Amino acid sequence: MNRNIPRSVSYENGRLIFLDQTQLPNEIVFEEQTTVEQVWHSIKMLKVRGAPAIGVAGAYGLFVGARNILNRKTKITHENFILELTKLADYLDSSRPTAVNLKWALKRMLDAAIKSTEKNVSTLCSLLEKEAILIHEEDKKLCRNIGENGLSLIKSGMGILTHCNAGALAVSELGTALAPIYLAHEQGIKLQVYSDETRPLLQGSRLTSWELMQAGVDVTLITDNMAAHIMSQGLIDMAIVGADRVAANGDVANKIGTLGVAILAKYFNIPFYVACPFSTIDLTTPTGKEIKIEERGPEEVCHFGNRRTAPEKMKVRNPAFDVTPHHLVSGLITEKGLFLYPYAEKIQREYRPT
Amino acid sequence: MNRNIPRSVSYENGRLIFLDQTQLPNEIVFEEQTTVEQVWHSIKMLKVRGAPAIGVAGAYGLFVGARNILNRKTKITHENFILELTKLADYLDSSRPTAVNLKWALKRMLDAAIKSTEKNVSTLCSLLEKEAILIHEEDKKLCRNIGENGLSLIKSGMGILTHCNAGALAVSELGTALAPIYLAHEQGIKLQVYSDETRPLLQGSRLTSWELMQAGVDVTLITDNMAAHIMSQGLIDMAIVGADRVAANGDVANKIGTLGVAILAKYFNIPFYVACPFSTIDLTTPTGKEIKIEERGPEEVCHFGNRRTAPEKMKVRNPAFDVTPHHLVSGLITEKGLFLYPYAEKIQREYRPT
Repeated sequence: MNRNIPRSVSYENGRLIFLDQTQLPNEIVFEEQTTVEQVWHSIKMLKVRGAPAIGVAGAYGLFVGARNILNRKTKITHENFILELTKLADYLDSSRPTAVNLKWALKRMLDAAIKSTEKNVSTLCSLLEKEAILIHEEDKKLCRNIGENGLSLIKSGMGILTHCNAGALAVSELGTALAPIYLAHEQGIKLQVYSDETRPLLQGSRLTSWELMQAGVDVTLITDNMAAHIMSQGLIDMAIVGADRVAANGDVANKIGTLGVAILAKYFNIPFYVACPFSTIDLTTPTGKEIKIEERGPEEVCHFGNRRTAPEKMKVRNPAFDVTPHHLVSGLITEKGLFLYPYAEKIQREYRPT
Repeated sequence: MNRNIPRSVSYENGRLIFLDQTQLPNEIVFEEQTTVEQVWHSIKMLKVRGAPAIGVAGAYGLFVGARNILNRKTKITHENFILELTKLADYLDSSRPTAVNLKWALKRMLDAAIKSTEKNVSTLCSLLEKEAILIHEEDKKLCRNIGENGLSLIKSGMGILTHCNAGALAVSELGTALAPIYLAHEQGIKLQVYSDETRPLLQGSRLTSWELMQAGVDVTLITDNMAAHIMSQGLIDMAIVGADRVAANGDVANKIGTLGVAILAKYFNIPFYVACPFSTIDLTTPTGKEIKIEERGPEEVCHFGNRRTAPEKMKVRNPAFDVTPHHLVSGLITEKGLFLYPYAEKIQREYRPT
């Protein structure tokens, strides 16, 4: 892999390291995580963010907890070990109760311990270490597959617009939306990436711009409302964004502002792609209309950092997501392949057992 | 007029007062201007901003300078009075060298003094006072006429989106884009205004939201990238923005982000209007392609106030304006009337002497 792509979670020689994303881009702080409490706090305080990254962080966190149990002076029985492990998993899960990937990863770790025929707690602990590494490796492989499936869309000299952060900091290694970009960069394909700053929380300026710069990708930061002008100048050949959820009909829920980018891309005849793990497609949600949009507090819109930028008692809307109708999406880039529009039926076929 | 609409420049009982816009919305500070140097500084430091408001401020500023000449203990000859006045006008003009309205207003004031048959300097000073008040009154009347010509477009219960600040703070009394909204509000027509925050300088959150709130208009602040979502929810029935320049073919240069709003409005079949003084239409500029877009420094995009929000050495684009092609503009609202699309020929007819 490109050694310069920042890693939000890494595990090497028995040391679990998180990159503190709350301090980016001003400070680059790596923190070793040595206790379950510390991992809980890191997830809670958004030092680690992005659904897949949280899952990986939680899995390693549970292993760190198991290792600390074993390091105590008093020996523990198999029964008590499983009991403590279950409590630790519940505790870790409470750091971000709505994070589906965290719950999933913790359950997978716990199941690995509970269902194992191995009763030696020390061996069980090694097994947990292997399982966490496996979850991490699977996530990396998934990103690389997304990257490979999107790579065919990228030609030398292209201008690519992205919105929010669906990169290495949110997932593992290559990210989702940024995976084809990183792979193209690895292969020496010349690109010009434009990163929307992504108000109100500025994931584009704080995270995407930073991680692409670190990796040596040529990236230019713009405010969200500059995208139309930049497109009108012929500088954008393609837009790639991530997704929070894709409905069965192909409608895409993603960070607020994604719908605007998709409409502008349509107007300027620019292909608009969504990159996401195949598991992001939720067949139980028929269309985008059924996706509830989280409305967040007014402070994010009225303030910048600690500084108030709008009048006191200002009425504000702050939807965290929007829904892009499937007909504006040129295709979905997933680890199972590139699904070009109209893709809804192809997705559903992929889900059917063959 | 609605007494609650804030006034950026006011002149009452011989006192010239500016509202310091650099402190909005956190502090509401009115400053009496007693010297030409103070007026120069206020314009330079953007305490007064918006092309028409600067013209009015400059005209009053020159009168204040003339009055101070007369208040000296030593008497001045007519010749020396005109000489000093000319120097003061040049000096005031240097506060914002590219502001066409400032140059125009100062020349008009100077001409009034030079071309007058009156040679008594005290009477000439009164004449300058009257000329400044006249320039101000003409600007107010122009705004009211824009408001009246746009009022027919507004129906009770409408949601109206605006971008940047083309309100009372930038012009006189009613502003341009906000004039129809203020008149509708005066008449008790219920409205819901949405104000784009307008990155990077936040004129929408700092100024438009504030002045509409002060006037009692129901206004909701959104980040620029929320407009598409808000439109998709059926909350916007009309968009009104101002203009910096309109080309002969009807293309509109305005604050960055305007083009995006126009494209979104087209997609959702929402009428998109541009309100501006007729003098904003520049027949010597054939199309929008000939309008040079000012590119500003990177700090505005990389920082928020004093706080850095993007990585060091970040590559940035920062165009201050964009160009909206005429076919996306439903109509121009001017003091000479409402010109509906296709309006280019109608404009040119209006310019021809009849």
